[in-house]
Amino acid sequence: MRIAIDAMGGDHAPKEIVLGVKKAVDHFKELNITLIGDENKIRQYVSNHPSIQIIHTEERITNDDEPVKAVRRKKNASLVLMANEVKEGRADACISAGNTGALMSAGLFVIGRIKGIDRPALSPTLPTINGNGFLMLDVGANVDAKPQHLRQYGIIGSIYMEKVRKIKQPRVGLLNVGTENGKGSDLTKKAFELLENSPIHFIGNVEARDLLDGVADVVVTDGFSGNVALKTIEGTALTLFKMLKEKFMTNPKTKIAALLAKNELKGLKNQLDYSEYGGAGLFGLKAPVIKAHGSSNQQAIFSAIQQAITIVETDVVKKIQTEVNMLPSSSHGEES
Amino acid sequence: MRIAIDAMGGDHAPKEIVLGVKKAVDHFKELNITLIGDENKIRQYVSNHPSIQIIHTEERITNDDEPVKAVRRKKNASLVLMANEVKEGRADACISAGNTGALMSAGLFVIGRIKGIDRPALSPTLPTINGNGFLMLDVGANVDAKPQHLRQYGIIGSIYMEKVRKIKQPRVGLLNVGTENGKGSDLTKKAFELLENSPIHFIGNVEARDLLDGVADVVVTDGFSGNVALKTIEGTALTLFKMLKEKFMTNPKTKIAALLAKNELKGLKNQLDYSEYGGAGLFGLKAPVIKAHGSSNQQAIFSAIQQAITIVETDVVKKIQTEVNMLPSSSHGEES
Repeated sequence: MRIAIDAMGGDHAPKEIVLGVKKAVDHFKELNITLIGDENKIRQYVSNHPSIQIIHTEERITNDDEPVKAVRRKKNASLVLMANEVKEGRADACISAGNTGALMSAGLFVIGRIKGIDRPALSPTLPTINGNGFLMLDVGANVDAKPQHLRQYGIIGSIYMEKVRKIKQPRVGLLNVGTENGKGSDLTKKAFELLENSPIHFIGNVEARDLLDGVADVVVTDGFSGNVALKTIEGTALTLFKMLKEKFMTNPKTKIAALLAKNELKGLKNQLDYSEYGGAGLFGLKAPVIKAHGSSNQQAIFSAIQQAITIVETDVVKKIQTEVNMLPSSSHGEES
Repeated sequence: MRIAIDAMGGDHAPKEIVLGVKKAVDHFKELNITLIGDENKIRQYVSNHPSIQIIHTEERITNDDEPVKAVRRKKNASLVLMANEVKEGRADACISAGNTGALMSAGLFVIGRIKGIDRPALSPTLPTINGNGFLMLDVGANVDAKPQHLRQYGIIGSIYMEKVRKIKQPRVGLLNVGTENGKGSDLTKKAFELLENSPIHFIGNVEARDLLDGVADVVVTDGFSGNVALKTIEGTALTLFKMLKEKFMTNPKTKIAALLAKNELKGLKNQLDYSEYGGAGLFGLKAPVIKAHGSSNQQAIFSAIQQAITIVETDVVKKIQTEVNMLPSSSHGEES
């Protein structure tokens, strides 16, 4: 197996990317990695290694680049060359911690969609209080989703959680404004009906309030609401940690309290760190494409590689293709 | 001034409602309250009081009732009779801590919309780290919002924050998946243009991640996304408090830490308690309608009454009417 990795994407590139790759090739015997980026910079962190190949390029896409334009114009950017490796069959999967929009564009325009999937979904695994996590899709690849897209997300998410996370009969929930049937917007009402008639374990509507409690293994939503939910979780957690820190600085008593509980409180932050679950899959493409978190360290890159390996080994893409092909024709294929 | 209040709505009705009302009539000299509900139960908490009138009814709408049906069929429910008091001019505003959907229905069908407002918005004030709070609208009254609805929300929210919360030139932000212009869904792209050309201080797109940091005084969004954001804030905060509590129970050291920081940590929870800011306004109706939180205690009811008084005194409804009438005719009036 060979995985192509953008060495220049992310806040700590190329150092943490390369160190994560080294760790992975030493750990997984059959693994080969193609690193794409500035060879001089990459070489600072890795000497010749039989399982690591480097494709040199000095062009790169930054977070300030406009995604679609950047992918079209910067033909030699590390992210674009990475996608090419997959497209031309020289790699089985790819990973980048760089510009999310550019990765989505490269996935769509270079690698291409699975036949029958209208829109790929960006799908992170988010933390739950019991540590199992849940897959949310979509969180922003497709902000104007249609009911059949949400059905496809339900199927994709269910296959992923079953094959890769080894959950039997994953519980698929539809993010909505209430739990009762018949609740919601035009979109969720129609999606509810389609999801009910899909080959998945659909548990109905779920509310944003219950997400971190683990109310479902897969949470399906349009890219706009999913993005809002994801960023609200991040923002609320960050704000609470900030406020908590202030509280602990109030007086000598609270400062002692902070010292006494230091290790346990650190554990709390790690429990919410979703890079532990690997990266966000860009599901619905012809090959596994993983978006690692922008702030990925070597451990996060290692997790993303492990995740990509499992997706390839369990043949998730083919399984999605098969399931989608069995849907009634009105609910897949061309956009309605 | 007279305010009609549903004595039977909320988890702690009628006790906390009546106690909150007693506190308010003793505090505000010119205030008269009409309490609607079971007189025997209400009388347990208040004897004759010159400023409190009671309308007796035994019918009530519960949280299990389907909102629209309940308002149509339970003609003598306390919530419906409350709305009637406003409609028939015997009260200037009304407050309920009961079924949110039923209150919205009663507002719409009994009290009615301001001319030029297509859809009322449910608008709570949510906490920010600096304690000022921000108004978010809509959080669920109108889950299939159109661009002109979002423009109306911007205007309504701006007037409310200026008149009632005394903020000069309130910053109005549009909830979106990124801060750059041109980002977002069809809805937010069109709403952005309308908001840019409205008589408000529009600061552009804001992200869910920055809400609690106080990035805007008014945050405009469709009812679906607003509901998701609101409930994600609640859920994330609750989950974090639960996890924090567990961490403090880990071992003797953390238990001592919990004791030492007890008061300050309690303060943290109160800082996030948005009932402190009063209730959620149902804006866009011909009279002020306030939804107090279901778990309201007497202090929360007192705050909601104070809020209703300020809305009436500052003539917010008339001001909204005037501003909306000045918009180009394509962006108000009948649904497009």
